[in-house]
Amino acid sequence: MPTAAPGATKIGFLGIGIMGNAMAANLIKDGYDVTVWNRSADKCAALQAAGAKLAGTPAEVVSSCDITLAMLSDPEACLAVAMGPDGVASAMKAGKGYVDVSTVDAATAQEVAAAVRGAGGAYLEAPVSGSKGPAEQGQLIFLSAGDRQLFDAASPLLEVMGKASFYLGEVGAGANMKLVVNMIMGSMMVSYAEGLNLAKQAGLQQADLVEVIKLGAIACPMFALKGPSMIEGKYPPAFPLKHQQKDMRLALALGDEHAQQLPLAAAANELYKRARAAGYSDADFSAVMDAVASRK
Amino acid sequence: MPTAAPGATKIGFLGIGIMGNAMAANLIKDGYDVTVWNRSADKCAALQAAGAKLAGTPAEVVSSCDITLAMLSDPEACLAVAMGPDGVASAMKAGKGYVDVSTVDAATAQEVAAAVRGAGGAYLEAPVSGSKGPAEQGQLIFLSAGDRQLFDAASPLLEVMGKASFYLGEVGAGANMKLVVNMIMGSMMVSYAEGLNLAKQAGLQQADLVEVIKLGAIACPMFALKGPSMIEGKYPPAFPLKHQQKDMRLALALGDEHAQQLPLAAAANELYKRARAAGYSDADFSAVMDAVASRK
Amino acid sequence: MPTAAPGATKIGFLGIGIMGNAMAANLIKDGYDVTVWNRSADKCAALQAAGAKLAGTPAEVVSSCDITLAMLSDPEACLAVAMGPDGVASAMKAGKGYVDVSTVDAATAQEVAAAVRGAGGAYLEAPVSGSKGPAEQGQLIFLSAGDRQLFDAASPLLEVMGKASFYLGEVGAGANMKLVVNMIMGSMMVSYAEGLNLAKQAGLQQADLVEVIKLGAIACPMFALKGPSMIEGKYPPAFPLKHQQKDMRLALALGDEHAQQLPLAAAANELYKRARAAGYSDADFSAVMDAVASRK
Amino acid sequence: MPTAAPGATKIGFLGIGIMGNAMAANLIKDGYDVTVWNRSADKCAALQAAGAKLAGTPAEVVSSCDITLAMLSDPEACLAVAMGPDGVASAMKAGKGYVDVSTVDAATAQEVAAAVRGAGGAYLEAPVSGSKGPAEQGQLIFLSAGDRQLFDAASPLLEVMGKASFYLGEVGAGANMKLVVNMIMGSMMVSYAEGLNLAKQAGLQQADLVEVIKLGAIACPMFALKGPSMIEGKYPPAFPLKHQQKDMRLALALGDEHAQQLPLAAAANELYKRARAAGYSDADFSAVMDAVASRK
Repeated sequence: MPTAAPGATKIGFLGIGIMGNAMAANLIKDGYDVTVWNRSADKCAALQAAGAKLAGTPAEVVSSCDITLAMLSDPEACLAVAMGPDGVASAMKAGKGYVDVSTVDAATAQEVAAAVRGAGGAYLEAPVSGSKGPAEQGQLIFLSAGDRQLFDAASPLLEVMGKASFYLGEVGAGANMKLVVNMIMGSMMVSYAEGLNLAKQAGLQQADLVEVIKLGAIACPMFALKGPSMIEGKYPPAFPLKHQQKDMRLALALGDEHAQQLPLAAAANELYKRARAAGYSDADFSAVMDAVASRK
Repeated sequence: MPTAAPGATKIGFLGIGIMGNAMAANLIKDGYDVTVWNRSADKCAALQAAGAKLAGTPAEVVSSCDITLAMLSDPEACLAVAMGPDGVASAMKAGKGYVDVSTVDAATAQEVAAAVRGAGGAYLEAPVSGSKGPAEQGQLIFLSAGDRQLFDAASPLLEVMGKASFYLGEVGAGANMKLVVNMIMGSMMVSYAEGLNLAKQAGLQQADLVEVIKLGAIACPMFALKGPSMIEGKYPPAFPLKHQQKDMRLALALGDEHAQQLPLAAAANELYKRARAAGYSDADFSAVMDAVASRK
Repeated sequence: MPTAAPGATKIGFLGIGIMGNAMAANLIKDGYDVTVWNRSADKCAALQAAGAKLAGTPAEVVSSCDITLAMLSDPEACLAVAMGPDGVASAMKAGKGYVDVSTVDAATAQEVAAAVRGAGGAYLEAPVSGSKGPAEQGQLIFLSAGDRQLFDAASPLLEVMGKASFYLGEVGAGANMKLVVNMIMGSMMVSYAEGLNLAKQAGLQQADLVEVIKLGAIACPMFALKGPSMIEGKYPPAFPLKHQQKDMRLALALGDEHAQQLPLAAAANELYKRARAAGYSDADFSAVMDAVASRK
Repeated sequence: MPTAAPGATKIGFLGIGIMGNAMAANLIKDGYDVTVWNRSADKCAALQAAGAKLAGTPAEVVSSCDITLAMLSDPEACLAVAMGPDGVASAMKAGKGYVDVSTVDAATAQEVAAAVRGAGGAYLEAPVSGSKGPAEQGQLIFLSAGDRQLFDAASPLLEVMGKASFYLGEVGAGANMKLVVNMIMGSMMVSYAEGLNLAKQAGLQQADLVEVIKLGAIACPMFALKGPSMIEGKYPPAFPLKHQQKDMRLALALGDEHAQQLPLAAAANELYKRARAAGYSDADFSAVMDAVASRK
């Protein structure tokens, strides 16, 4: 499998949501020949305007491309797109590669890998760390696992879309690494919300807390970015709360599988569920702020 | 109250433990005339060798100094040093200032403030964010509250010992801000420990997790610093676990006072208690790693 | 469907574990003609000695019986026995009924119901409340849902094996009711273990606690029964810990589906996972005592 | 110290709230000569009408009585009544006994014991298990500790007011036993609320759940009594929520002292705090139902 160079390689992209749109746009901008597909084709309009070709099915994309990437919303979508009628596997063959950058559980990745490999293709799972902003700026991190040759071939693409890519081993390792990172992130966000709310109740300025944290050992981009909008009670969706809760659920299931206690993740998950009950599923996951704040 | 300039101002320092030693050493290095006191005088030997004077009681220090700082281990020590026999209050008078940089609850700070002010002196609470390393490097953050004039006068000292100082308002605000920050930090550490243990159980490289996190939205100095030693099961004490647990307890009490739910902090606190039961009181608070890992 | 009377009705029983053995024995003792099947046929020896016939497959049982009951360990076993090769559905027909008294999730019950009904048979889910002791004494409680006519026909059987049976509505309601009850039970057991351990640490007699509780508002059979053996650190399996943890997991999944926060159940689940990690999967669920007690 | 017999012994009672009123009324009904005191004297009107004498201070009560009981709301009240001006200790002397049936922490009981004994009197802590109903019906349980002779002397009084009394050892043991029982009770109530809410969300009848539980291993008087009113969202105060939360807090502090992890109690405590934030402090503690149910 040759390395993907702009011009020389035809790239497919399945799933044009917030993330997929930003990632595919960066590939096009870098000169790649990109063919896109989305369940609702109208979401592809901006990319078409930027030069992308539109295909009618995942199979069509795979047929015409060397490497096909996919950024889909959940395991069900990944399985349907990969293995359903007119799906990826139906057009896969030796020499072609499928790079699924969606966040799914290891079992789903393994199932898709088996289907793709069964049809002769190469498979790489490469879930991303990072949300809308990093996707737009080409600053994602790819947690890759699967066929090493495909990882090497796809590396130029990953470099266009991200700032780093890891090769973690067998299929499933990428999914699991992503879950672990997102689990920590999810607990941290709840803990930050607890701190901001406690500050308010104790008569402190929440903005002072944001500044103090910026200078210390727990300073991180997420706190600096989200703090000001959380104080204002604004949660424009970069990473939807329902997806964060899904990841908490999957991480807890991974812990259950290995009998690893995760009491903080479990407590955090309950608050994300609580936020879902209050209607924040599609808000940014920082909206867990309001679940922590609720006094009704 | 004139601003504290090296040479022109006599500085006292009460409490020469890990933190106090590093802070006082920086003041001496910067040219200040420093008089120190510690319950066990032998802890002061290094500072004496560096030029510090040794006094026999807190009152002696206050008598001979313009501004006296204190870094003590807990509320009981703060009350005893400030208000006990030969304590700070007994020698305090107008024109002198007392800057308590210990981490205590707001009620303790208020009690000490009343005693110092009752004797005519000025009071500033200024608990620090940062542990041994930042103390040695003069990179602490001071969360000050109390007499504004003393804050202005002491600012040159705070600049020598730290990289930033906040003035947060009435006495108690510094203590409470510190608690809020340490509460978030304590929960984050448990969450990180959960992630590292889950990674291991799921067959991932823990070192990969540390590297992946470094590049993303939750990258923070604490994770980068502590991760490698946590993986090795080494917990040299920078911030002793029993102090972290004390701060969790005080933060939870603050939440209780204001009826603010803090489910993650509460869950994290139970793990620090668990770690205490396993004998990690004097280890670094990152030793909560082993409480999360325990399968016995 | 006629009502099941001893002598007149042929009864099948699938799954001869701790519970199934006790239940089938009671049916035989009451004069019913019982045919049994178990994956490992040797578990059926005692029942055969008591008069049961042995069949080679679930289908054989269903073919020769009017009403077939099943007590299986988990959803996978239920699906395999009902829908696998030589399974229940393959021999089901109009006039026959299948009463699944296993504890499974609603989706599994619905899937089995569809297969049984698709083959013309009637379906009742009837998970039991109660473990080994009540099973032996015919004191179980059946939480039934599904075909009302089959519930009426099977009532005499349920009366032999239990002390009460509820008809709760559509298929799935029995499973869900069971999960809710077991979730509360699981949390209560952890809370009891917390109390017993706290009593010990605080220098109280644990046996006094058991006696005090017996006289008050929270007196319940489970506490009275399990307290003395928990104090001795003995956990002979009446309800295996791994099954309690499975029920916690399923109840939490039900809560997740409906965005119902369940913070205590979530915290309790982590302790059951912790107990699994310590090797207590096959001990009684009261062995969570040791997970709470652990100071290593 | 002679045994307290109706007619022969003069009994004092301090603190005439919901509980104290019911307990003193039972003593009067049984023929005892009872002198009462309450901070707000008007609360004593019903008891006066039933034959009680009214005194102006705790000291007056102790002066004129052989054994004085007290049922006060919290540690502060206990300390003030025992050791304040015109308090119990000021009139205590050899031959007199003080039986404090309030629920307080062990340290408070020890402090009061020292004051009473220092004045020559005997001291018994005897916190009760049971709320309004059991108090009225003389069905309380007394968790006594302290002077054994006073326990023997007061036993006839305890028998009038309760159905059982335990002698648990040194002062503090009663307080700690009470806390442990109330901690379990508090967690159980939250768990029951979780179950009732999950039942509702999953489409089950909450009343069916109450009935199912009544027949099984976790059947207890509290569930049977509170279930129906919780379903209706009615929480007439038998045991005020703020007192339950106080007991959770004290039990957690006891666990902290002994490094005993109590993750369920900690999670439950957060929900009681949450309920306080929603205005349920003075409602029955079963109002935690609404905190669990909240979806706003």
